[in-house]
Amino acid sequence: MNELVEINDSVEALKSTFRRHASGVAIITTKDTDGSPIGFTATSVTSLGATPPLVSFNVARGSSSWHALSTTSHVAIHTLGSENLSLAKRMADDHTKRFIENDWEFGVQGLPIFAGATSVLIVKVLQIVNVENNAVMIGAVETGLLGAEQMALLYHQRAYVLPGEIVS
Amino acid sequence: MNELVEINDSVEALKSTFRRHASGVAIITTKDTDGSPIGFTATSVTSLGATPPLVSFNVARGSSSWHALSTTSHVAIHTLGSENLSLAKRMADDHTKRFIENDWEFGVQGLPIFAGATSVLIVKVLQIVNVENNAVMIGAVETGLLGAEQMALLYHQRAYVLPGEIVS
Repeated sequence: MNELVEINDSVEALKSTFRRHASGVAIITTKDTDGSPIGFTATSVTSLGATPPLVSFNVARGSSSWHALSTTSHVAIHTLGSENLSLAKRMADDHTKRFIENDWEFGVQGLPIFAGATSVLIVKVLQIVNVENNAVMIGAVETGLLGAEQMALLYHQRAYVLPGEIVS
Repeated sequence: MNELVEINDSVEALKSTFRRHASGVAIITTKDTDGSPIGFTATSVTSLGATPPLVSFNVARGSSSWHALSTTSHVAIHTLGSENLSLAKRMADDHTKRFIENDWEFGVQGLPIFAGATSVLIVKVLQIVNVENNAVMIGAVETGLLGAEQMALLYHQRAYVLPGEIVS
């Protein structure tokens, strides 16, 4: 058997592990109670079964998006591709500058929609599970918007990456 | 703006979207109440904050692993790499044959540990949120085991893939 090295510090264990784990990149948008567009880059979007179609994602309750997310009825989950790198970075940077470009508009359910995404899910928020400083948000897919086909955008080892060799 | 094509069927919307989304591959193991090793391949493992270190993953409540998962105190989350392709496939296939190879042993907390993984988190189950036929499992990281450095294993468009070009 290979050797495994024990990591006794739980924070370091989590960080070391997720450095080795890759994830798809999405952006999640909604509208705040004052009507302003809100959004952020997320690497935690995952399916929670197809019948019925459900999704989940995680959010920090201290984040700039939390007020809007915790009060909204719907969110738009955008999956990103190779042409969305600058969008992914912008939506992870200064929250006051995330909607300054002319690459989005209010659409279904009044949600901010970035048409350059590979796909958009319109999701009704079903449940918010608060866990320490974070929350798991669970939603039901209502409809979708399919964008241009692109290579998926990934996040791995603190960098944005494209898929490479198919091994199966 | 690019054109987005509406998908009115919610199941088709979810499937189309996740076909374009990539995810990291993990295996989750635990021990059933009769002592037998249980496990499955998962693409839903995600961090839920580092302070304290929490993780979440999703599971179908109809799966062969559900009885064990819904009764256990701990699970081991293994992140997989390029050398773990056959392991990823085996743990997603016939559940009676997942532990027939000699590549694992019972370890910390009595959990089945595959030493060939890139990293293993020993996780205490904090909360199980049932949603329709599925569940979101939320856990606290207790310790970790770091394996050999490998390229991360990804799942995308129904195939196992390695990371390619770094674009950021």
